[in-house]
Amino acid sequence: MRAALMHGPGDVRVQDVPDPEVQEPTDAVVRVVRACVCGSDLHPYRSTEPSEQGQPMGHEFIGVVEETGSAVTGLAAGDFVISPFAFSDNTCDLCRDGFQTACPRGGFFSAAQAEAVRVPQAAGTLVKVPGGLAGVDEALYPSLLTLSDVYLTGYHAAVTGGVQAGRTVTVIGDGAVGLSAVLAAKQRGAERIVLMGRHRARTDLGREFGATDVVAERGEEGVAKVLELTGGQGSHVVLEAVGHRPAYEQAYGVVRAGGVISRVGVPQYEEAPIGFASLFGKNITLTGGPAPVRAYLEQVLPDVLDGTIDPGRVFDRTVGLEEVPEAYRAMDAREALKVLVRP
Amino acid sequence: MRAALMHGPGDVRVQDVPDPEVQEPTDAVVRVVRACVCGSDLHPYRSTEPSEQGQPMGHEFIGVVEETGSAVTGLAAGDFVISPFAFSDNTCDLCRDGFQTACPRGGFFSAAQAEAVRVPQAAGTLVKVPGGLAGVDEALYPSLLTLSDVYLTGYHAAVTGGVQAGRTVTVIGDGAVGLSAVLAAKQRGAERIVLMGRHRARTDLGREFGATDVVAERGEEGVAKVLELTGGQGSHVVLEAVGHRPAYEQAYGVVRAGGVISRVGVPQYEEAPIGFASLFGKNITLTGGPAPVRAYLEQVLPDVLDGTIDPGRVFDRTVGLEEVPEAYRAMDAREALKVLVRP
Repeated sequence: MRAALMHGPGDVRVQDVPDPEVQEPTDAVVRVVRACVCGSDLHPYRSTEPSEQGQPMGHEFIGVVEETGSAVTGLAAGDFVISPFAFSDNTCDLCRDGFQTACPRGGFFSAAQAEAVRVPQAAGTLVKVPGGLAGVDEALYPSLLTLSDVYLTGYHAAVTGGVQAGRTVTVIGDGAVGLSAVLAAKQRGAERIVLMGRHRARTDLGREFGATDVVAERGEEGVAKVLELTGGQGSHVVLEAVGHRPAYEQAYGVVRAGGVISRVGVPQYEEAPIGFASLFGKNITLTGGPAPVRAYLEQVLPDVLDGTIDPGRVFDRTVGLEEVPEAYRAMDAREALKVLVRP
Repeated sequence: MRAALMHGPGDVRVQDVPDPEVQEPTDAVVRVVRACVCGSDLHPYRSTEPSEQGQPMGHEFIGVVEETGSAVTGLAAGDFVISPFAFSDNTCDLCRDGFQTACPRGGFFSAAQAEAVRVPQAAGTLVKVPGGLAGVDEALYPSLLTLSDVYLTGYHAAVTGGVQAGRTVTVIGDGAVGLSAVLAAKQRGAERIVLMGRHRARTDLGREFGATDVVAERGEEGVAKVLELTGGQGSHVVLEAVGHRPAYEQAYGVVRAGGVISRVGVPQYEEAPIGFASLFGKNITLTGGPAPVRAYLEQVLPDVLDGTIDPGRVFDRTVGLEEVPEAYRAMDAREALKVLVRP
């Protein structure tokens, strides 16, 4: 089959690779109906080590089950499924706690920008779409795909951040995760949502998703602006959807005493301030991590199917599999917000 | 009056200072009945800049109101009161949120190792003990004094850490705050409480307070031991009651995926690991800060008065005001766990 592999910075190639196969009795093979490029794919796109062999890419996909291993229950060839970006058995203690991204039998997908994907722990991982491929309007595919990662990553930020009615929420970052966090915060009842971002087309979509204020300034200026908007006290909840250290520093600058910073941008740093001057003195809670989207997927799916939310609007371009290198280039150049891939 | 002042590392002197007076209409003056030395006082005791003028010390006290300013309501001369270690108006938004340590009209006491203390925002700050001085057995004074800081600091750790029935809790540090955290975790229903500490007399008291396991090892060895005790998964909640960076590193080593680290040891560092490898990858929540003891005081007071809990057992020595320098020396040398001061 054809698949996208990354060979070095800026070097993504679509190549022939062996077809995926059922290797374990708990595996399934899924033919990809839609995949996409993630903001987090851009980190290696900028800095990965060059390699001749290449690294298969992509972790978000919806598709149709082609084959299941002998131990896979509840799934059959032909089922239309959404896959979380992490696989998990969904039965262990940690999965039952709602932290499927930490499942000891789990792991992260990394070969979904392809025609088909091998899915370990398929019974625990895949979620069937009611109605199947024939029963769901193709116009819903983009939103269904966001349940694989991007919307539910924003949703995880809002959940772990404790967003609820009456809370002021600041979202840092106007990428697809940031905009998803805005939509999720709105869904969870936030009245005031300040979006920190400087790309007009994106912040305009953020307003449609529920942002009540947009702050284009960054750093100290941006912090001052948010404090001004919140009567000098700061924001009850800050959803950090970037992952670079200046975004984290902005987060503790704008958060209210006793408030919560929830991070879902994958941190591109290991150490950062957490002492008296940043978090401790103000009793700030820092939370977040890789979203256990499996924990939220079935709960949010009906809202997508009935049109209550349309998180798929974060996709502003669609390409075929052969054009995946162009998708990376366009996202890296900020010409596209998020690119859908139709294999 | 007489008061303890710190003039440099290891240099605490009891001296004559002016009597405190009502300066603002919202002030009261309180005669100190009991004060004490805090583990956090030992940080400057080891590293403060030498000064001829000296720095008044102490932030924990119970006492009797001597005088109130014209705007102080609900208090009168003769009232027996407990003072939180931070004063606050207890009416603003942040106080109503339960974060009195962040009150814009608030601040921290720093002159309670003395015969009397000026209390700003007295109406919001001081809590009357029912029955008054005459109605309360002197044997309860040590436990009442712990509601000024140490027990409720441990309690804050347990509250913000989300300790509840069924949770495994690890407490790092066998100082007075760590032991208080053990007792608070027990009160809040924790079934398994692992105490990390190496001082036998202290960990023995920890067992009496509710610790089910004691781990004397530190660093990697200590982490391995706690993981072994928790079936390899780690502890749902970690209460960090030390404040040094190795204790924080131990905390993220022993916490379970999706778990919570609550810090109440004042951090003696500003930067520390919070990236994918430490907190983010496992969806760890980091919380805690200076305990808003005013938020908990009235709720916990009845448990002290009726003997349900006896947190005052952390005091293992009593001195007069003139002996405060010896109290610092004994705590610094770990000869005493926590020293009560009877002016």
